[in-house]
Amino acid sequence: MKPLIFQSDFGLADGAVSAMHGVAFSVCPDLNIQDLTHEIPQYDIWEASYRLTQTIRYWMEGTVFVSVVDPGVGSDRRSVVAKTMNGVYIVTPDNGTLTHIKQFVGITELREIDERVNRLPGTAEDYTFHGRDVYAYTGARLASGLITFEEVGPSLDPQTALELPTYPCWIDGGDTAVGTIDVLDVRFGNVWTNIRRSVVRELNLSYGDRVEVEISCEGRLYYKHELVYTRSFSQVSVGEPLAYINSLDCLAVAINQGSFAKAYNIGTGNNWLMRVRKIR
Amino acid sequence: MKPLIFQSDFGLADGAVSAMHGVAFSVCPDLNIQDLTHEIPQYDIWEASYRLTQTIRYWMEGTVFVSVVDPGVGSDRRSVVAKTMNGVYIVTPDNGTLTHIKQFVGITELREIDERVNRLPGTAEDYTFHGRDVYAYTGARLASGLITFEEVGPSLDPQTALELPTYPCWIDGGDTAVGTIDVLDVRFGNVWTNIRRSVVRELNLSYGDRVEVEISCEGRLYYKHELVYTRSFSQVSVGEPLAYINSLDCLAVAINQGSFAKAYNIGTGNNWLMRVRKIR
Amino acid sequence: MKPLIFQSDFGLADGAVSAMHGVAFSVCPDLNIQDLTHEIPQYDIWEASYRLTQTIRYWMEGTVFVSVVDPGVGSDRRSVVAKTMNGVYIVTPDNGTLTHIKQFVGITELREIDERVNRLPGTAEDYTFHGRDVYAYTGARLASGLITFEEVGPSLDPQTALELPTYPCWIDGGDTAVGTIDVLDVRFGNVWTNIRRSVVRELNLSYGDRVEVEISCEGRLYYKHELVYTRSFSQVSVGEPLAYINSLDCLAVAINQGSFAKAYNIGTGNNWLMRVRKIR
Repeated sequence: MKPLIFQSDFGLADGAVSAMHGVAFSVCPDLNIQDLTHEIPQYDIWEASYRLTQTIRYWMEGTVFVSVVDPGVGSDRRSVVAKTMNGVYIVTPDNGTLTHIKQFVGITELREIDERVNRLPGTAEDYTFHGRDVYAYTGARLASGLITFEEVGPSLDPQTALELPTYPCWIDGGDTAVGTIDVLDVRFGNVWTNIRRSVVRELNLSYGDRVEVEISCEGRLYYKHELVYTRSFSQVSVGEPLAYINSLDCLAVAINQGSFAKAYNIGTGNNWLMRVRKIR
Repeated sequence: MKPLIFQSDFGLADGAVSAMHGVAFSVCPDLNIQDLTHEIPQYDIWEASYRLTQTIRYWMEGTVFVSVVDPGVGSDRRSVVAKTMNGVYIVTPDNGTLTHIKQFVGITELREIDERVNRLPGTAEDYTFHGRDVYAYTGARLASGLITFEEVGPSLDPQTALELPTYPCWIDGGDTAVGTIDVLDVRFGNVWTNIRRSVVRELNLSYGDRVEVEISCEGRLYYKHELVYTRSFSQVSVGEPLAYINSLDCLAVAINQGSFAKAYNIGTGNNWLMRVRKIR
Repeated sequence: MKPLIFQSDFGLADGAVSAMHGVAFSVCPDLNIQDLTHEIPQYDIWEASYRLTQTIRYWMEGTVFVSVVDPGVGSDRRSVVAKTMNGVYIVTPDNGTLTHIKQFVGITELREIDERVNRLPGTAEDYTFHGRDVYAYTGARLASGLITFEEVGPSLDPQTALELPTYPCWIDGGDTAVGTIDVLDVRFGNVWTNIRRSVVRELNLSYGDRVEVEISCEGRLYYKHELVYTRSFSQVSVGEPLAYINSLDCLAVAINQGSFAKAYNIGTGNNWLMRVRKIR
């Protein structure tokens, strides 16, 4: 039986997550149920999308993810199951949660959940908790093999999966890598960009080289300073800033045992730009 | 093997929850152990009681819940196991944690834990952590089938299970539903009352109707305004307040993608009253 | 199959913990994976060490713990697996995380992880997330039986496991027990010392006796007052302070249903001293 993984913006303080788990175990008591995170900031579809991409590559083929960040619950937004290029299923409202998966992993098939069959019996009058009544129920049926992917519902064109706007990373003027700040490594205050290792390579950096990093948001400059490009935190002093390739193979900046984000009030999103130039 | 579900006010920051899990797995390594929540506010028996009721209906017959919100640990408060109308077991100090279960689900049998046999061997000198030494141990033995329900200890009259005071909901003057604010949907700031769908029906509301909502606590008015009664959040604008039937089939008010509780300083408890009147 | 237990300072807000879980399940889908805590304060090796000691005695022989509080990731600190006196394995950077285990439980064997074989394939270019690439991977292989303890890597002298400085507890002047404040019972604000029950016995205290408790840090006095030594919280009034033997068999002080640590600004560490004298 394949793992069934839950993600939401519900937090763990009340009974909502346990109600979803209970519905899933009632479908099949032998399921292997795990949690990705339930601390997605409320309604933050972007972060839900990012956390899926951060995680799914480490889970085996056939794993079923249920992601419930659903500000449009009860509207006519579609409920879908995506099959990814690496053979994982994602059960989610089609509200942008599939953005990064679609762009960086690839969606091979997409199906709309047919709620006439894939909905917890007895919940037709409930319009506020599809995470429990539709997504947990459908995810559990799929992970346990009670239904096939085809039985989820009618096939959709994967290209129609809703995407939030994203920006590329690029080389500017031959010596500067430019990208956006996608997300924070929350607890440590590290700043993660969308500048991939392959783009960083074009700067011909060696570990120990110094780079100039510039961070701005809507024309306002938040940081412009030199720091060392290094292999890992332990190559710099405690309290020293550094640039490095993070665990998702993208460029990041941090302060060793401090918080770069708090130190310089750095935020995330497509309006947060980072420019990195090798100092010759 | 039936699931074994833990709830407490311990938080997840230290080793207390893992010690309970370890005791349970040592009783039987094949148990299916899950957590409801460990973020019940410290000593808040009312919320422990509510979260059980919110959750148990989604878990299968035979599931064993262990709830440890236990300000009276070491006193002569009884330790009990309740069997509910839907066939679930709850292992808990008898301190009011069974309040909502008793009233809204029903307790069919109640037994006192005989600590001479149902206590982790070697812990007789420990008087501060019955969650680990008595409740986790007994719950694991029950869920794994090592003991029957009868072997928990002597039978008690279910009517003697301790109850915290609760208030009914009712119709006042033919056109106003009145009830108390039981709990918050913590992370979203939604305000949940004890006014059930069946009582709301007597107001003859249709989706889209406007209602006047009045919230007061001990004579002080906190909110009195019109808002729309609707099927789900997506029927109102972002930032607009609404009344709706929540996932527990009771009346609730919220602000779409905002926090009603923070906006108007709303608390919970039997002294928090809500009145809802249809506007004609 | 033996349980595989994770601990870290990553928090649960992003995908890091789930990536470790995914790596482990990919090694073996039948693993029993649990979490101790992921809320160790960032880089706090002392607390990681303490939480392991608080917990491992309740887990069965053969259980594998993976502890990732790793400020030196990418440095030449060793990666090791310790086998404890009670037959549990701990996979960890050798940075002091084994301090309390070594002193209070005992390490019978220690092996260095040979990363040429015990590293997730394809991660040789990643220098920042050994928790996922080395520790989760090795822990999963060990717990599932894919490798034996001997196949972890070369044997080391257990005496070389790195230790943080710790202090003893003792009897001063025949009537006063002295020790350090090791840790807080975080959520409740209880103050836990390293003064063991056996040392407390030398004071000839009976439940109900009054003691004088003095707490100081680097010469500054934070608390000096009488309170009652009692069996459990329920023997004192709500709001009353007490001294008691905690669930780890050491002396602790608390305020019943209040926070002793917040009330008197008590911290933890070897520079925080507590003196306890029986009042005759």
